[in-house]
Amino acid sequence: MTQVYFDNAATTPMRDEVIEKMTEVMRQYYGNASSTHGLGRSAKSLIETSRKTIASFFNVHASEIVFTAGGTEADNLVLRSAVRDLGVTTIITSKLEHHAVLHTVEQLQKEYNISVKYVKLLKHGVVDLQDLEGLLQTSDQTLVSLMHINNEIGNTLDLQKVAVLCKAHQALFHSDTVQSVSHYQLNLQSIPVDFIAASAHKFHGPKGVGFAFIRKGSGIKASIFGGEQERGYRAGTEAIHNIVGMETALKLSYENLEAERKQISELKAYFIEQLKNLSPDITFNGNCENAENSTYTVINVCLPIAPEKGGMLHFQLDLKGIACSKGSACQSGSNQNSHVLSEILTADYLMKPSVRFSFSRFNTQAEVDYVISVLKDFI
Amino acid sequence: MTQVYFDNAATTPMRDEVIEKMTEVMRQYYGNASSTHGLGRSAKSLIETSRKTIASFFNVHASEIVFTAGGTEADNLVLRSAVRDLGVTTIITSKLEHHAVLHTVEQLQKEYNISVKYVKLLKHGVVDLQDLEGLLQTSDQTLVSLMHINNEIGNTLDLQKVAVLCKAHQALFHSDTVQSVSHYQLNLQSIPVDFIAASAHKFHGPKGVGFAFIRKGSGIKASIFGGEQERGYRAGTEAIHNIVGMETALKLSYENLEAERKQISELKAYFIEQLKNLSPDITFNGNCENAENSTYTVINVCLPIAPEKGGMLHFQLDLKGIACSKGSACQSGSNQNSHVLSEILTADYLMKPSVRFSFSRFNTQAEVDYVISVLKDFI
Repeated sequence: MTQVYFDNAATTPMRDEVIEKMTEVMRQYYGNASSTHGLGRSAKSLIETSRKTIASFFNVHASEIVFTAGGTEADNLVLRSAVRDLGVTTIITSKLEHHAVLHTVEQLQKEYNISVKYVKLLKHGVVDLQDLEGLLQTSDQTLVSLMHINNEIGNTLDLQKVAVLCKAHQALFHSDTVQSVSHYQLNLQSIPVDFIAASAHKFHGPKGVGFAFIRKGSGIKASIFGGEQERGYRAGTEAIHNIVGMETALKLSYENLEAERKQISELKAYFIEQLKNLSPDITFNGNCENAENSTYTVINVCLPIAPEKGGMLHFQLDLKGIACSKGSACQSGSNQNSHVLSEILTADYLMKPSVRFSFSRFNTQAEVDYVISVLKDFI
Repeated sequence: MTQVYFDNAATTPMRDEVIEKMTEVMRQYYGNASSTHGLGRSAKSLIETSRKTIASFFNVHASEIVFTAGGTEADNLVLRSAVRDLGVTTIITSKLEHHAVLHTVEQLQKEYNISVKYVKLLKHGVVDLQDLEGLLQTSDQTLVSLMHINNEIGNTLDLQKVAVLCKAHQALFHSDTVQSVSHYQLNLQSIPVDFIAASAHKFHGPKGVGFAFIRKGSGIKASIFGGEQERGYRAGTEAIHNIVGMETALKLSYENLEAERKQISELKAYFIEQLKNLSPDITFNGNCENAENSTYTVINVCLPIAPEKGGMLHFQLDLKGIACSKGSACQSGSNQNSHVLSEILTADYLMKPSVRFSFSRFNTQAEVDYVISVLKDFI
């Protein structure tokens, strides 16, 4: 059966080179990086080389990269410590954030009674920067948490602009960059963001590993306590194979960035064109139709299908070997309505089925053609 | 050069079968377990099969096993939530606990102003159960956290007795079982412990994954927020390869338990005998000389070597290809004195070098002979 994997925003297939490297590490570098003997030192050395390599892609210092078990943990680490240790009493965020941010902020609100403000959204879920500026007119110690690229609709945020705005108002700025790291160059010397979070399995690396960038001198402290790993930022024996796998994957992504961006962008443009040919009533959610204001890896499309038929769509796509997503697949209970689409769509559009297709370098035009042929039967 | 790995309490080499299985999972099962399509469901199915298999070894329900990024995170999850969500205002623990417990408890003391009591230690670092019983005479909501096997000196705790004692006094009981899971059968239907923590890399599995046993109905809640993974106990995309690797490793450990226990126990007895032959002034730290009250995988020995020469011991052992540990190697800064030995040894013994040798099924008598021959030059 034809198998099409168009769910790369949920997770990506691993690159062969990454698996090979991880296997080598698992076989040969099994020492505990905290041990002082030779096997421990070589494990430690692998980790520190990975840290340097990863830091170099963002033009930051190696000591500003903290390895975690994933993007969610990285978001939690930054947000919790900002409140607990940095005196943050107000968090400004948006209703379109990933649950790793939204639910963490809600929990911090319960635990610390902080004030949480949600920035206004313009048409297509665009963050209203004027409203943000208004919210920043406060003497409270404030942290802004806004994602670089929305995982469901692909909208991009002008990181530079928001970071500068935050600095101008003495606010801290954290960005969940899980969907942009590896797809975009982020020079964190020129973008004055304080914290970012990333996850390896979104760029053909292993699951269960990610990192936080924590700008030097920020005062962030650990949320998981124990040993002195990660210079005290995060206790627990380091997962060397996963860390080296993440480094390998990120290196390959940035080495092939231009070629892969071109290939995937063309694929997305082609897909959009084919979808439009399918029916004039197809609409695109968020900004994803607009190449300027959305990532090249995501299309989120609302299909002109009646609810009774639409309910079967995902089931049928799955039967035809097409892996895609109703909304975010980053949480269980995906049968619930997407919280992102609920914010930006009117009731009549929410009644119709929306599908997120997300791409990687491993996808082809033939796969798009196949998906279009399957969708044709529905519309 | 001869290479001897006697640091298995810090971490273990991975079994080939585990690496092979993980490689297969990384190649074929790359779906996000939260995705509802076929690739997501098969990923989910692998995780749930692992959960059932692991639960079966402890005679508990699959829903009582929560996957984490390691033993440290499992300890943190339980301890933090016990204080935040279960109303625990007093924690009773011991000064010999792993830092994953000690430092977490200290942090909770700071954040929540809980009362922390350290149980008295008898000779050789044995937990004084009479003192524990005295400490339990309180109306405060209490949690006891005592490890099953001490990672540095190998002392074992009578889990059954302590669990029954805690129940008799309405106290919750958490045990860090990182050094005993895979080496001992733990039937958690007969042992009324509320929580345990384990780590895969201690039993020839991958680093960066572990689990907590959380008894049904306990009321424990998440510490990392976001998606609904792990039934809400722990947000973040599951590291399927690591989870399946942990299952494979634990299965192999329990399938071969008796044979491996016999082999390693004999090796330890032989090593003790050879050490005693080396010098009558050699002493054993904790209970490790006593097969009844210590694990079969650890020897911690204090060597009759003058400080000026002793300072070179670890360096020389490393040069000779022998990997072992000064104290715990689970934290960095291992050049500090072990907090465990500092508690149980007098100043004159602390002046002499102590070494932890810890074993696995991959060790041989010939390796013991080699280490003895190297030590001979020092004594």
